[in-house]
Amino acid sequence: MSDLKNDRFLRALLKQPVDRTPIWIMRQAGRYLPEYRATREKAGDFMTLCSTPDLACEVTLQPLERFELDAAILFSDILTIPDAMGLGLYFEEGEGPKFKTPIRTAKQIENLPIPDPEDELKYVMDAVRTIRRELNGSVPLIGFSGSPWTLATYMIEGGSSKTFSKSKTMLFNEPKLAHMLLGKIADSVVSYLNAQVAAGAQALMIFDTWGGNLAHHMYSEFSLNYMKDIVSRLTRENDGRKVPVILFTKGGGLWLNELADSGCDGLGLDWTMDITKARQMVGDRVALQGNMDPNTLYASPDVIRQEAARILAAYGNGSGHVFNLGHGITPDINPEHVAALVDAVHELSEQYHR
Amino acid sequence: MSDLKNDRFLRALLKQPVDRTPIWIMRQAGRYLPEYRATREKAGDFMTLCSTPDLACEVTLQPLERFELDAAILFSDILTIPDAMGLGLYFEEGEGPKFKTPIRTAKQIENLPIPDPEDELKYVMDAVRTIRRELNGSVPLIGFSGSPWTLATYMIEGGSSKTFSKSKTMLFNEPKLAHMLLGKIADSVVSYLNAQVAAGAQALMIFDTWGGNLAHHMYSEFSLNYMKDIVSRLTRENDGRKVPVILFTKGGGLWLNELADSGCDGLGLDWTMDITKARQMVGDRVALQGNMDPNTLYASPDVIRQEAARILAAYGNGSGHVFNLGHGITPDINPEHVAALVDAVHELSEQYHR
Repeated sequence: MSDLKNDRFLRALLKQPVDRTPIWIMRQAGRYLPEYRATREKAGDFMTLCSTPDLACEVTLQPLERFELDAAILFSDILTIPDAMGLGLYFEEGEGPKFKTPIRTAKQIENLPIPDPEDELKYVMDAVRTIRRELNGSVPLIGFSGSPWTLATYMIEGGSSKTFSKSKTMLFNEPKLAHMLLGKIADSVVSYLNAQVAAGAQALMIFDTWGGNLAHHMYSEFSLNYMKDIVSRLTRENDGRKVPVILFTKGGGLWLNELADSGCDGLGLDWTMDITKARQMVGDRVALQGNMDPNTLYASPDVIRQEAARILAAYGNGSGHVFNLGHGITPDINPEHVAALVDAVHELSEQYHR
Repeated sequence: MSDLKNDRFLRALLKQPVDRTPIWIMRQAGRYLPEYRATREKAGDFMTLCSTPDLACEVTLQPLERFELDAAILFSDILTIPDAMGLGLYFEEGEGPKFKTPIRTAKQIENLPIPDPEDELKYVMDAVRTIRRELNGSVPLIGFSGSPWTLATYMIEGGSSKTFSKSKTMLFNEPKLAHMLLGKIADSVVSYLNAQVAAGAQALMIFDTWGGNLAHHMYSEFSLNYMKDIVSRLTRENDGRKVPVILFTKGGGLWLNELADSGCDGLGLDWTMDITKARQMVGDRVALQGNMDPNTLYASPDVIRQEAARILAAYGNGSGHVFNLGHGITPDINPEHVAALVDAVHELSEQYHR
């Protein structure tokens, strides 16, 4: 495999010196891009787009052709694992993801298979291999998975939820069952992420989208502990370079100290946390990724530039910051506004790396 | 007006000694109670229920007849103020509240009236007077309002929102306009809450349901500052007793220190914050209210009892804690489970007040 032409993203996650702050954008390959919508239409439906390596590669590369981003992220969905476990993922127009067979009983959990990443999930690994080849060393490729708790909520609820009442009822009333389920998911995530690294992923990110909805004492037990376990079992080298791991609990600002001790290299920050305080709190333990409110991209290019300047200044001098939004970009954003953000980070961040 | 037979709630908020930890439940008069559903059906629709003082009184008292709660809370809605400003509140089945005329322009904001609480909002004051009379001094009555930021989101979006993109775009692109709107809402809230106190409310609570969605630096400027301003202008005495004020920013755990300096008496805590840490952080500045995950009520009565015990122990000895959920009770909760919680708090809290 070829050498990396731009390793700013990997270096920043390891707190090694960089010339400027790297930037990528959560959901950068997404509906806000007209070229994405065209490929999506060609594919017919979302899961066909995910499961056709050439199309997944095509949309992964689209934002990099438009903007000077410092990383690519595999185009896929966090629900590939439960789907491969046989839950029957489907999407209802305007309703988000659903599962035909939600998981509620001990018997169902016992019978859940650990998917073979080169069999049921081979389409993901093929996408990773295709994207790595097409990137040709221009920027690193990020692989990813959902966290066990986040995946479990969809599996137990049978889809999205506002309150997570069914999943939380299991945590309260049948904690052993919940642990059995979370353990199986964690094993699947380890095997899935390690296969992504073997297929070419150069960094990994675990999305704990719903961890921030757990009560304080339950977050450690039911979400963080499983992410820690996963991190300890991941392949951390590829092509002779360290594979950094980023953990992102949305709404996890209150648990930053515990997250910084998880063994990961970087922490995703949403926009509610002051990045100055966050940096003081985590010290040299981890790098930080974030933390612009995705709604900032609705603002005018001038305001976007001011906000980028504010966040860069709030992080301050030195490496260890990957610029990003604090959550995925929304579908109705003007791509010109993304260009304004990327330019601003390029131009304004050099002063912090002299 | 008669003396209070049970002033545990007021005393706890002022950190005065109590015999046991007081408890009330956010949205205690709500759809989980069959008697509420019956009155709601009799009323026909939600706004008729809110705007008919006898019916509002009826549902306010229902949970107190079932459970030994230590406070009543006025049955109303946070959107009464924008409705009285002429935005045309209506409810679409299963869609939440909507406004016929969302607020987007300077002209609209300039023309917004400050509602007269004894005119357009007289039905609320009549409800307060009726409830006070019917309570007959059994427990104190809490009056309430939404926070300016929370009300502004509904007014700008025209209803509920997941991302608050329109409201945040105003904050970013037209901050002066946003401040004009928030200032008018704050004036209305002050007049509304002071009228509730004049009508008989013995404590006040401000619900900042959406403050926790603001970026760190924007929370102070656009939400907290307006709540501080309101608190400084409230009538703080009724029947010769102090009227305590509770501020509740859902998801506000990261701003607890700033909230504790706001001049209020109590802070509502959702379930993501460790109440032990919260107490250490706020010290003697304020009392704390919360912080059980509302989903706990889906658990078995035994687990509910364990969780109540855990939270009481985590707060520890002494006054200054009002037991509550960290957000409103959901409609599909079994009322027997609420009884189990109330009993547990009664029985298990005495040991912390000897």
